[in-house]
Amino acid sequence: MNDCEPLAIFTPSGKRGRVPAGTTVLDAARALGVDLDSVCGGRGICSKCQCAPLYGAFPKHGVTVAPDALSPVNAVETRYDEKRGLKPGRRLGCQARILGDVVIDVPPESQLHRQVVRKAAEARAVEMDPATRLLLVEVASPDLHAPSGDLERLNAALAAQWGLPPARPSLPVLARLQAALRKGGWQVTVALHRDRDDAAARILDLWPGFFEGPLYGLAIDLGSTTIAAHLTDLATGEVHASAGAMNPQIRFGEDLMSRVSHAMLNPGGAAAMTAAVRVALNDLADGLAVQAGVDPRQIVEATLVCNPVMHHLALGIDPVELGQAPFALASSDALDIAAADLGLVSINPAARAYVLPLIAGHVGADAAAVALSEAPEQSDDLVLIVDVGTNAEIILGNRARVLACSSPTGPAFEGAEISSGQRAAPGAIERVRIDPATGEPRFRVIGCDLWSDAPGFAEATGATGVTGICGSGIIEAVAEMRMAGLLDGSGLIGSAEATGCARIIPEGRTHAYVLHDGRAAGGPLIAVTQGDVRAIQLAKSALYAGARLLMDRIGVDRVDRVVLAGAFGAHVSPLHAMVLGMIPDVPLDKVRSAGNAAGTGARIALCSRAARRLIEGNVRRIEKVETAVEPRFQEHFVAANALPHATDPFPELARVVQLPELAFNAGPGEGGRRRRRG
Amino acid sequence: MNDCEPLAIFTPSGKRGRVPAGTTVLDAARALGVDLDSVCGGRGICSKCQCAPLYGAFPKHGVTVAPDALSPVNAVETRYDEKRGLKPGRRLGCQARILGDVVIDVPPESQLHRQVVRKAAEARAVEMDPATRLLLVEVASPDLHAPSGDLERLNAALAAQWGLPPARPSLPVLARLQAALRKGGWQVTVALHRDRDDAAARILDLWPGFFEGPLYGLAIDLGSTTIAAHLTDLATGEVHASAGAMNPQIRFGEDLMSRVSHAMLNPGGAAAMTAAVRVALNDLADGLAVQAGVDPRQIVEATLVCNPVMHHLALGIDPVELGQAPFALASSDALDIAAADLGLVSINPAARAYVLPLIAGHVGADAAAVALSEAPEQSDDLVLIVDVGTNAEIILGNRARVLACSSPTGPAFEGAEISSGQRAAPGAIERVRIDPATGEPRFRVIGCDLWSDAPGFAEATGATGVTGICGSGIIEAVAEMRMAGLLDGSGLIGSAEATGCARIIPEGRTHAYVLHDGRAAGGPLIAVTQGDVRAIQLAKSALYAGARLLMDRIGVDRVDRVVLAGAFGAHVSPLHAMVLGMIPDVPLDKVRSAGNAAGTGARIALCSRAARRLIEGNVRRIEKVETAVEPRFQEHFVAANALPHATDPFPELARVVQLPELAFNAGPGEGGRRRRRG
Repeated sequence: MNDCEPLAIFTPSGKRGRVPAGTTVLDAARALGVDLDSVCGGRGICSKCQCAPLYGAFPKHGVTVAPDALSPVNAVETRYDEKRGLKPGRRLGCQARILGDVVIDVPPESQLHRQVVRKAAEARAVEMDPATRLLLVEVASPDLHAPSGDLERLNAALAAQWGLPPARPSLPVLARLQAALRKGGWQVTVALHRDRDDAAARILDLWPGFFEGPLYGLAIDLGSTTIAAHLTDLATGEVHASAGAMNPQIRFGEDLMSRVSHAMLNPGGAAAMTAAVRVALNDLADGLAVQAGVDPRQIVEATLVCNPVMHHLALGIDPVELGQAPFALASSDALDIAAADLGLVSINPAARAYVLPLIAGHVGADAAAVALSEAPEQSDDLVLIVDVGTNAEIILGNRARVLACSSPTGPAFEGAEISSGQRAAPGAIERVRIDPATGEPRFRVIGCDLWSDAPGFAEATGATGVTGICGSGIIEAVAEMRMAGLLDGSGLIGSAEATGCARIIPEGRTHAYVLHDGRAAGGPLIAVTQGDVRAIQLAKSALYAGARLLMDRIGVDRVDRVVLAGAFGAHVSPLHAMVLGMIPDVPLDKVRSAGNAAGTGARIALCSRAARRLIEGNVRRIEKVETAVEPRFQEHFVAANALPHATDPFPELARVVQLPELAFNAGPGEGGRRRRRG
Repeated sequence: MNDCEPLAIFTPSGKRGRVPAGTTVLDAARALGVDLDSVCGGRGICSKCQCAPLYGAFPKHGVTVAPDALSPVNAVETRYDEKRGLKPGRRLGCQARILGDVVIDVPPESQLHRQVVRKAAEARAVEMDPATRLLLVEVASPDLHAPSGDLERLNAALAAQWGLPPARPSLPVLARLQAALRKGGWQVTVALHRDRDDAAARILDLWPGFFEGPLYGLAIDLGSTTIAAHLTDLATGEVHASAGAMNPQIRFGEDLMSRVSHAMLNPGGAAAMTAAVRVALNDLADGLAVQAGVDPRQIVEATLVCNPVMHHLALGIDPVELGQAPFALASSDALDIAAADLGLVSINPAARAYVLPLIAGHVGADAAAVALSEAPEQSDDLVLIVDVGTNAEIILGNRARVLACSSPTGPAFEGAEISSGQRAAPGAIERVRIDPATGEPRFRVIGCDLWSDAPGFAEATGATGVTGICGSGIIEAVAEMRMAGLLDGSGLIGSAEATGCARIIPEGRTHAYVLHDGRAAGGPLIAVTQGDVRAIQLAKSALYAGARLLMDRIGVDRVDRVVLAGAFGAHVSPLHAMVLGMIPDVPLDKVRSAGNAAGTGARIALCSRAARRLIEGNVRRIEKVETAVEPRFQEHFVAANALPHATDPFPELARVVQLPELAFNAGPGEGGRRRRRG
C-alpha cells in the first residue's frame, strides 16, 4: 500500500483501502472485497455495477472528496445513459476511474449478495447467492494453429474473467454454443449453475452477446392437499407471481396414509400418483410463466419442499416403507436433480431442482423449510414451532439444541371429518364468537367483510351464501363454546336445558350447537356436533402430546414462545388455540403466526446457496423423536384430551380468560373415535 | 511392525510385511498394498480373492512356510468348494488367516488390476481399472430412533467398507433401492461408476444381495463408412463379441465433406444424420447383446472413437464449422456423458459413455485412440503412424515430442472413385501380382483362398465371381504395373505397343490395363484406367505430403519406423505402399500393421481410467499441424505425385526392388483431377 495512492471508501460496507490512481471503481471494489455486482464483467453493458459517488467532506471517514476525484463521465456511460437511462449522480463502476480519495455508495440493487428483507416486521434478511447466475463471457476466437473447442475456450474465459472452474453444458446446449458465439461476436451470456462450490458447474443455457435476464426460480411447496409455487427473480429475490393448485393425488386418497395404502394395494398405484403430481407441477409452472408473462426458458431453477410421502411420490419412489415402522426413507439428504425429473418439462429444459432434505420418516422437507425460515437454532429463548396439516410437524429448540417430531393430528384442523366441515373457500365460516350471556353466535365467512350480525350480511355473502365451516372456524367455534359454558372440560356438549341455550339441539343421543340455519333459503344447517368436538379433541391431543414429548426430552415444563406455521397458523387465533389446549400455555403475545413458513423456506433456498448448506447441516443436527414408539406419547395424548388439559396448568391462559367449571352428563350414545395417522 | 508377527510375502508382486497373527490374507493384502480382488468385501461369497499359498522353503524370500502357516480350511470355504468348486490348493483370501510366515501367490484372475495382454506379439499390457465396478455392500438396517435414508446408509457402508465417497443413483435406480435392500437381507451389489477419483460417483444399477455380473462395456469405433463395436468384459478386458454395421449416414453423403455440405444446405439435415447414426449405434449394441446372449442391463459403459464430423453428428452438434477454416470444434475435450445421449437406449438405462478427446478440427478421437493404442510418446525411435480412411490421420513422434495432422486423401484408398472400385467384400480383388516378363496378372479375391491362376479358381469364387477391385487391390495393381514397366514414374500408362503388353487397351485418349475380363460369363471387365492411377496418385500424394510436413517440423528427412493403422493398414502390403511412395522410405521390416488401432484404443479406454487420463494429457501435448494452411503442403503434394517420388530418394526401397526408368507419352486427353478434401 502506498500512502500517495487514492483512498477508496465504500459504503454501506465501510470497506476501505488505497488503490493505484486510475483503478476503476469495479476493480477497486473487487480488490477490497466490496460486494459490487457485474454480469458483463466490466464491459459497460450490464450496468449492474452502478454506484453513487459522494462528494464533499466526510469527517467520519476522515476524507474530503474533490469534485474531480473520479474520471469524467466517459463515452460508454453517456451512451448507456442515452439508451437506457442512468439515475442522477450514478456512475458505472466499471467505467469510472479513481483519481483521488473517494467515498462510493453501493446502492442495494448493485450488491450481488444484496440482502432480501423477507418480512418487514422482523427485518430478517437473506443474502442473495442463488445457484444460477448470468455471466457475460468474452471468448477467444478459434486459432487454426492452436486448435481447441469453443467450449474449452469458453471455459478458459470463465476461469480468466470470473475465476470459475470448468463448466459443462448439456448436449443440446452445447449444440447451440457455436452459433451463439458467432452471432454474439465472441461474447456469450451463460446461465451458470453451481449448487456447491465443490460440485461440477453446469451451463444451463446460453444467449448470444449480452442477455439481461432476469432468470427465475420456482419455490414449490407441495402439500398433500394443495400445491403452491412462487416465481422468484433469482437476482433480486422478489416474488414475481404466485399460484396454487389442488394436488391431483387427492383422487387416490384424501390423506397421506390412504395414498400409501393406495400404493400398497394397487400395482402401479404409486406410479399413477407420481405421474399425476408431476403433471400438476408442470401445469403450475406453465401457468405461472403465462400469468407473469415470462419466457419459460428463463425459469432455470426450482426448489421443492414437501412431506416425506409427497417427496417420494414426486421423485417416483414407492412410499410403501413410509407406511410402517421403521418408516425408512429411500433417501433423506437434499437432492440437486434435473427439474425435468420432477416433471417440470415446460420450463428451461436444463433447469435444476433442489429438493430440501428430509428430517425423518414423518418429518419432511416441509419441516426442514420451516426450520430454515424460522431458524430455531439461532433463538435465545426456547421456541415451539408447529406446522399443522394432516400431520403436525413440531420443532422445539434454541441455540443449545433443536428437536423435531411429527404427530398424527388427522385432517380435522383442515375442516375434514367435521360434519359441516369444508376447505377454506368462499362461504366457509372462518371466525366465530359466541355471546356467553345469550349463547348466540356471530361469525364471518371467507369472502365477506361483514360479521353475520351486521346489516346486509346476507346480501354481502351473495349467491354463495354460508356453505360450511373451515378449520379455523371449527377451532374458534369449539373454543367459544367452551368459554360460553356450552361445553364442559371433558368436551361434552350440554343439552339446551343444562346450558339454557336454545341453539343446542339433540342429535341422536348427543347434542349439537347450531351455528347457522340456512335451510329456509335452501342452504345448509351448520352445527357443531359432539362428533366434531371429539374430532377436534383427538387432533389437538395429538398436537399437544407431540409438543409435550419434545419438552420432556429437553426437561422443561414450559416454552418461551410459540410459532404457528402454515396456512392454518395464519388463520387460527392464539387465544382460541390455547383455550382448546392445542399448544402449551404461554403469554398470548408470545404466540405468533409465521405464515407459510415452509414456502418461505423454499424461497430462501432458492435465493441462497448458503441457506442450503445451513439447513443441510441443521437437519443432521436436529434430534428426531418418533412419536409412534414413545410410550409416553400415549400417556400425554390421553391427558391432553380435556379442554384445555386434564393435568397441565394453563396459568397464562387463566390471566386472560376464566373458563367455567362444568361437567355435563354424557348421553349413552357418546363414544370416542380412533385417531388415525395420516 | 513386530518381529514376532508372521511375515506375509505375496507373489508375483514381491510385496511383503509383518501382520498380526490371525489377519486374513485379504486384509494382509490390503494392508501391504497387494492387488487382490474382492467384490463381496470379504464375505466369502464372490471368491474373487482366491489365492494359492505356497509351502516349504523359499531361500529367495528367506522364509520357510510351515503346513499350518494358514488357518485350516473353514466351513465357508468348504461350502464354497462344494457348491461352486475351488481349484486344488486354492484358498479364499478373506477366510484363510495368517498364523505363521507365508508365501501367497495371487493368480492373475484374482488381481483387481490384472494386466490385459492385448497383442500376443507385443505383450503390451493394459492394467484393468474400469470406471464401473461391482461392489457388494452390507447396509445397516433403518433405526427408528436415528432416522436416515436407505441411500444415506448405503453411502455410509460404501465409505466404511470400500473407502468410497458418497455416490448418487438416478431417480429410477433410487426407486428400486428399498426393495433390493430388503430382498437382499440388507446386502446389495451396486454397479459403481467413477470416471475420475475427483468426480462424483454414480450408482448405475443395483441388485439384491450378491450379483456376480459380469458387467460389460462397448468399445465403439464410429467411422464415416462403417461402425464397429466390441462387447468387452469390464472385469477381464476380454472381448466377448464384436459386430459391425454400415454407417447409415452414407445416404446423406459418401464422404465427410459431403455430409457437412448436406448439413449446411438442408435445414434439419444435421439432425437427420444424428438420428440415423444414433439408431445405428443402438441397433448395433442391441444386436451384440443378442448375439452374445448378454442381458443388455449388464452393459453399463461405452467408449466412442470417431473423427470430428462423426463426433459432432453423434453428439447432435451441427458440424458446419468443421467445413471451413478455422475448423472450430464445438468441444474437443473428452466427455463423460449418459450413453442414452448417444442413442444407446437398449443397454442399461444409466449406462455411461466416454468419448475420447479430439486432437484438432481434422484430427479426431479416432486419431487419439490410435495414439493411445500405439503410444508414440513412449517410443524411443521416431515412429510415423498413418491411419487411412477418407482422411488420413498422421502422427509422428517419439519420447521428445509428438505431432499430428490430417491429410485429405479422399476415398480412393477405399476403392471409391476407382472405375471398377468397390468396398472390401466377397468378389473384390484384394491382391494383385503382374509378371514383369509377360505383363500377365494373377490376383486373389476376397472370400476365395485360391489365386486366379490356380486350377478351380472360377469354381471357388462361386456365384459371386469377380466383382471389382477394393482399396488394397488397386494399390497393389498400380504398384505392380509400375514394377512391371506398364506405368512410368509420372503415372502414365503406356500403350500396348510401348509396353509390349497385350492386356493394355485404349480407353479414349488414354490407356487401361485389363485385370480380368468376365464379360463372356456375364461379369464385368475389370481394368485399371489412367483415371484410376491419377486418383491413387492424388491420394498418396496427400498422405505423403502430410507425413513430410510433420517431418519438416521436427527437422528430419527420415523416420525410424512406420505403423499402418486401420483396416487399410491391415491389408495393404508395405512393399507396394512404398513403391507408390505412400509412405517415406524405411526398411520394409520397419513397416508394421497395427490392425484396428482406433478400436483397440477404444477398448483400452474402456478397461482403464488411467488410460483415459493418459490420452487426455497426451492430446493436450500433441503439436497440431493444419495442412490446409501450410504453404509447404502444396509443394510437398506436387513433388509426391511421381511414383514413388520426384525428388525424395527411396534407398531402402531400392535395396528390394529396382523400378524401371520409363517415360511414356501422354495422350492429349490425359488430365489431372482436383483433389477433394473429405
